[in-house]
Amino acid sequence: MITNLQEGERLDDLECKGYQIIQKKDGFCFGTDAVLLSSFVTVRESERVLDMGTGTGVIPILLEAKTKGKQFIGLEIQQSIADMAGRSVAWNHLEDTIQIRTGDIKEASKLFGGASFHVVTSNPPYMPANTGLKNPNEIKAISRHEIYCTLDDVVREASKVLKANGRFYMVHRPQRLGHIMEAFIKYKMKLRRLQMVHPMLGKEASLVLIEAVKYGNPYVVVEEPIILYERPGVFTHQYEEIYGKNRSNKKCGC
Amino acid sequence: MITNLQEGERLDDLECKGYQIIQKKDGFCFGTDAVLLSSFVTVRESERVLDMGTGTGVIPILLEAKTKGKQFIGLEIQQSIADMAGRSVAWNHLEDTIQIRTGDIKEASKLFGGASFHVVTSNPPYMPANTGLKNPNEIKAISRHEIYCTLDDVVREASKVLKANGRFYMVHRPQRLGHIMEAFIKYKMKLRRLQMVHPMLGKEASLVLIEAVKYGNPYVVVEEPIILYERPGVFTHQYEEIYGKNRSNKKCGC
Repeated sequence: MITNLQEGERLDDLECKGYQIIQKKDGFCFGTDAVLLSSFVTVRESERVLDMGTGTGVIPILLEAKTKGKQFIGLEIQQSIADMAGRSVAWNHLEDTIQIRTGDIKEASKLFGGASFHVVTSNPPYMPANTGLKNPNEIKAISRHEIYCTLDDVVREASKVLKANGRFYMVHRPQRLGHIMEAFIKYKMKLRRLQMVHPMLGKEASLVLIEAVKYGNPYVVVEEPIILYERPGVFTHQYEEIYGKNRSNKKCGC
Repeated sequence: MITNLQEGERLDDLECKGYQIIQKKDGFCFGTDAVLLSSFVTVRESERVLDMGTGTGVIPILLEAKTKGKQFIGLEIQQSIADMAGRSVAWNHLEDTIQIRTGDIKEASKLFGGASFHVVTSNPPYMPANTGLKNPNEIKAISRHEIYCTLDDVVREASKVLKANGRFYMVHRPQRLGHIMEAFIKYKMKLRRLQMVHPMLGKEASLVLIEAVKYGNPYVVVEEPIILYERPGVFTHQYEEIYGKNRSNKKCGC
């Protein structure tokens, strides 16, 4: 029955409207961060959404399932990954609303034109190109390190492709909040909403969910913290509600 | 025995090294924010500390009690409040380490010279001058609204009076995080540490504790959230540990 899987791939159940997603057995697959970001994002009826650096395409697929957005475009620089995401879209018969495009985030405003989206989402590489241990798997390294695009590139292009008052949603490491704010100020994005994600109550934040608005007002809401684990191995009820049925990546080892 | 109290004042026990503090019966007294900030601040041995907008003087007095700092200066623009803070210092026999100065935050670098402190603390007015209901009590209005100084003034002067790598600690409303980051970037302060304060788990943050470093590196830590109440009327153990014995303001009605 599964005719479009290639070697080294597997099909995982998103347990959300029956959708399934193709991922790589070697661990290139969506993580907690993508699930949290999808839950944090608001897409209103008829809005157009661009996901910059879409990877497996999980964010557009989950947002298509959860919202009444009109069109979702996933932009991915790695041809083989974009192909895989495109096959996931086709497998779920979502070609009318989701398009996967192979291309460079740095060129997003040239590819799509300025002021062309209501919403931009991104789960970008977290680490500067010159820091940390690089993953020897090139595909994973590109998704984790700022090899092809920097944080500045992501925010600049998001700002360009967003309409006035358009919303930008990003998940990132709290360590980078200073860099993120510098880029927001540089590109006229106003921080509107923050939500910190802590592995446990009593621990430092490991992720931050961010909403910014193009030319928005400068007032910020800091949402309730998300606490992932009650104790080692046991999710909090809060996280179970967010995670919902999208548990397939528990098997993924990302 | 209490000879230095004036009309409308009372003496409250800080339950910390036996120190007491003079406050006003009408509610001009220190709050949760000052206690949280004092707990968030690090002062190392022999360091000089400036508290900008010191009010009752509670921050220098608590920091004197908790740290081995060499000198603590509290700057306060309102003469009557600075007098009251000075009498608290004298009452506790702390004149050798704490000085209260009457003066304007906007003039701090002229008053004290550039690069003259290791640490600056501030619990500044939270609200822009033109927003919200102003307190009809002028003393309270000045402490809560940016009448005499703006956030930009506070950060500019903090940056000027701090030595290179000096630390700036502030408590503020999360709503102002965008403004705060704009000022940090303008005055070369690097955000280093954030701690969100939530009235209860599941509620938006009501306060944010911030550490920034003059010319520091750009990496940020987001600490565990502080949750104040377990349920209405019942403090969390976490907050009781921070609050410790400094409970006198429970009687204050701030």
